[in-house]
Amino acid sequence: MLELYHAEPVANSMKVLLCLKEKDIRFVSHYVDLLRFEQHRPEFVKINPNGQVPVLVDDGAIITESTVINEYLEDEYPEVRLRPENPVERAQMRVWSKFVDEYFCPALSMIGWHTMVRKVAQKLKKDELDEVLSHIPLKEQRDKWATIAGSSFTEEQLADARRKLGVSIERMEKLLEKSHWLAGPTYSLADVNSYSIVAGVPRFFPELMKPRATEWLTEMNERPAVKAALAMPNKVPEALRAFGD
Amino acid sequence: MLELYHAEPVANSMKVLLCLKEKDIRFVSHYVDLLRFEQHRPEFVKINPNGQVPVLVDDGAIITESTVINEYLEDEYPEVRLRPENPVERAQMRVWSKFVDEYFCPALSMIGWHTMVRKVAQKLKKDELDEVLSHIPLKEQRDKWATIAGSSFTEEQLADARRKLGVSIERMEKLLEKSHWLAGPTYSLADVNSYSIVAGVPRFFPELMKPRATEWLTEMNERPAVKAALAMPNKVPEALRAFGD
Repeated sequence: MLELYHAEPVANSMKVLLCLKEKDIRFVSHYVDLLRFEQHRPEFVKINPNGQVPVLVDDGAIITESTVINEYLEDEYPEVRLRPENPVERAQMRVWSKFVDEYFCPALSMIGWHTMVRKVAQKLKKDELDEVLSHIPLKEQRDKWATIAGSSFTEEQLADARRKLGVSIERMEKLLEKSHWLAGPTYSLADVNSYSIVAGVPRFFPELMKPRATEWLTEMNERPAVKAALAMPNKVPEALRAFGD
Repeated sequence: MLELYHAEPVANSMKVLLCLKEKDIRFVSHYVDLLRFEQHRPEFVKINPNGQVPVLVDDGAIITESTVINEYLEDEYPEVRLRPENPVERAQMRVWSKFVDEYFCPALSMIGWHTMVRKVAQKLKKDELDEVLSHIPLKEQRDKWATIAGSSFTEEQLADARRKLGVSIERMEKLLEKSHWLAGPTYSLADVNSYSIVAGVPRFFPELMKPRATEWLTEMNERPAVKAALAMPNKVPEALRAFGD
């Protein structure tokens, strides 16, 4: 039995939901409510000691990290192929996915946390916040919650995040000027892994978008798998829809 | 023809050199002298616009990012297998390699830059430093050089890097208590990708090492491929041997 622990269809949860929908794989969905801190509860931390979604459980075997989960799904369910056959394009798929994980996504995440998740954090009373923080396994995540509950990120940090989003879209644009999809002529995990992040950019900074990136996003939005993934339960009010983890 | 642009056998260059030696693949070696800033020269930036080593060139096709290069070598030269057959162990290999890239290596890199690369940076006169900085393509790398040429990282940043090294070794220890290698019973890219980083820990903070991690490192040091990779040219004086990029 294949099970996915995930939040609403944004950010890293969306990466795996979209991969599952593209491959038309049946799975049992376990919704984890991040804004009610279900990801830090003992029963969830037993599954992922880092207290983060998404987590795939395949007949009891636990797989974490959305990018790795999608490679796992490709290894185990190759009927619909999302890794290019060409090894150079396959490397490009991995280079781009790594860039999204290490640079593009953290920049958008900071903006999303500052703009949206902060509304939740700042409603917490001191003792509630302390209680929340005491259950967060990773120091980096504790620090992030403490930051947005306090004075949040500095203007300088937020400006740098916006700059990084610009760099990311420019890098994307260059790729899309050379080929139809991000890792060559074939739709691949490079595209799957980027969708939820790219979709956040025009929402916050429409001026950063470029022609080919916009076309790519429009084409992505039309994919039946994207529509199916976006139709997954979303308990988060629109005003608070966030870029989780 | 397979060519590798690389620095001395430490850090990310060592990851790929070790993979090539494990697989016994012949390649043309191009040594890039990081401390003489050859990685920022126009002829190299043409090959990798990020101005970073290692870079693999396979009949003209350019592959960057050491972790991705090693997956590429595995895709193209599968005679000696370094990816576990078992898909769950393969996912574990990727989760661990990702952790090394995003957490373990940056922590060691900060210590290495502060302790060793700084000696080079602080010898530069103001106009020499400005000249060096003007050729560095990535803002993050420019900032790093400017930081170590100036007052360097703060005590707080360095203490946090040391803490992260402790967390990394503890996480490694837990894995090695369960299985002989980092991604299960089979030697894999998880081990290959970790060697150069783990080897740096006892050099700086021997007190952080744990029994199984020490055994693993001893066993790694005995591998013929490790010895062969370490025997590659190293133009950097011992006192300055650094954790490049």
